[in-house]
Amino acid sequence: MSARTVAIVGAGLVGSGWAIVFARAGLTVRVYDPQPKIREGFHGWAKTSLKELEAASLVDSAAETLARMSVFDTLEEALDGATYIQESVFERVDVKTEACLAIDKAMDPAAIVGSSSSGIPASAFTEGCTNRARFMINHPVNPPHLVPVVELVPAPWTDPDCVSAVRELMNEVGQVPVSLTREVDGFVLNRLQGALLNEAWALYEEGYASIEDIDATVRDGLGLRWSFMGPFETIDLNAPGGIADYAERLGPLYFGMGNSRMDHPWPKEVIARAEAERRVELDAGSLADRRAWRDSQLMKLAAFRQANNLKRSPSS
Amino acid sequence: MSARTVAIVGAGLVGSGWAIVFARAGLTVRVYDPQPKIREGFHGWAKTSLKELEAASLVDSAAETLARMSVFDTLEEALDGATYIQESVFERVDVKTEACLAIDKAMDPAAIVGSSSSGIPASAFTEGCTNRARFMINHPVNPPHLVPVVELVPAPWTDPDCVSAVRELMNEVGQVPVSLTREVDGFVLNRLQGALLNEAWALYEEGYASIEDIDATVRDGLGLRWSFMGPFETIDLNAPGGIADYAERLGPLYFGMGNSRMDHPWPKEVIARAEAERRVELDAGSLADRRAWRDSQLMKLAAFRQANNLKRSPSS
Repeated sequence: MSARTVAIVGAGLVGSGWAIVFARAGLTVRVYDPQPKIREGFHGWAKTSLKELEAASLVDSAAETLARMSVFDTLEEALDGATYIQESVFERVDVKTEACLAIDKAMDPAAIVGSSSSGIPASAFTEGCTNRARFMINHPVNPPHLVPVVELVPAPWTDPDCVSAVRELMNEVGQVPVSLTREVDGFVLNRLQGALLNEAWALYEEGYASIEDIDATVRDGLGLRWSFMGPFETIDLNAPGGIADYAERLGPLYFGMGNSRMDHPWPKEVIARAEAERRVELDAGSLADRRAWRDSQLMKLAAFRQANNLKRSPSS
Repeated sequence: MSARTVAIVGAGLVGSGWAIVFARAGLTVRVYDPQPKIREGFHGWAKTSLKELEAASLVDSAAETLARMSVFDTLEEALDGATYIQESVFERVDVKTEACLAIDKAMDPAAIVGSSSSGIPASAFTEGCTNRARFMINHPVNPPHLVPVVELVPAPWTDPDCVSAVRELMNEVGQVPVSLTREVDGFVLNRLQGALLNEAWALYEEGYASIEDIDATVRDGLGLRWSFMGPFETIDLNAPGGIADYAERLGPLYFGMGNSRMDHPWPKEVIARAEAERRVELDAGSLADRRAWRDSQLMKLAAFRQANNLKRSPSS
């Protein structure tokens, strides 16, 4: 796929991150957002972010990358010449449906559209599109320019060639594509996160440990390995004979732990207790600052992983 | 707790790592293993490991740290003067029971014994000890000198003061203690790991994605955040109003994903397919090399986290 020009539709936090992903890889990026205020703010945000990335050795040249991005006042102008379109509008079925119908009308029928949906499948909002075979999910983690994984999820009517082409494009721009064979609620990433969260809430509800201690179990334990090996590679290395050996030794234990869970949703009064515990660690007025801290740590981690070659190579 | 001298009982991979944890913090370490071959090999292993840690700026002086460790031929000699004893013998109830009864006879009754059990609770093997109120679980992740988290789990008869004292000691030596209020199968760490693994196996069994792509979802996505923030802090920062706001928005979705799971253990034929996929990524003859790679990456990550102050401070 020779997507030398890509279009970004919806330039909030996710769409803006996508613009950097494509531009730093050398592609021409044409940006559109229906809100004039967001269109006007884009350039300043991109300039600041690119300087930070340059300082962390995560882009070669902030100035050259910035020069590859342009903002347009209409959707039609933004899509002009684009062979790949990343849609990142607000995640609600009616909003996505309207945006996709507009893209459908203005797009080159040979272009491909990837939606940044984190959970709503493409079949819920692309059925009415003339070019619906060209639409699919390309779900990034926020912010996309610091967390490389993306989930590719076809609708039942998506042309399989589009999935292959987007996988190739994602490898080319340095993201790490994960391909789902078909739609499932929450895709893979949020299903894995949800499984761990459900257990964490249950342990907290039953009073086994504090919010902060459960967090430490991941941050200072499990998460260290998981930041450079997945869960399967982790267990593959954790038994003398590899993954099958591990599954034979420990599978029954894990099944026993799991099969009593999830008989009720996260309870309101438990959520209230958790909220109070978190507010002791971090007051509500400091949430925004801590989010900025998180992104600066992600940037350092991205630079560290790049220096140590910890990310999967595009060949996989 | 003034544990200036600690004893290590069982000097395999886990016990040896523990010896480094204590010695690099300035404590005197007395090592014993029932197998002469392991006793003889300890010094050489410790010397090599400490040189690597020194190169990564993870110990101040390899030579001084080594000088604080001594190996003894009898349990009695090793326990002489020890106010804290870390038991790390083979994890089987009969082996642990025998070791604890021997420690019980030889120990100072004012000393505390922590067992490196990863899942067997202390009540299963310390009931017959005269000093059973002084026994508890202190579960590390392997290797303890590179992964800081430890789980402290009291038996029903453990003196609560022992748990407080060990928590203080763990903070002092630079580990990150997590306190469980009471025993539960798998403690917190392996229950969280198990919940994620159960979902990963189910997604693989149902054909949604490959082993390698599921691994990438964690390694290049979820695991990045989880290596410096726990799951609760992650969601606290992922909704404008914090954790309660997040739980209200997304709790029902996660409950929906989770409540259909775990109706059967990991199936044999699925394990066989996973084994085959992993052996394409890594042949069986390379497992040992890849484990060495893992530990060298953990060492780099430990140094990176130390430089960036990512671990919880001992004050928490």
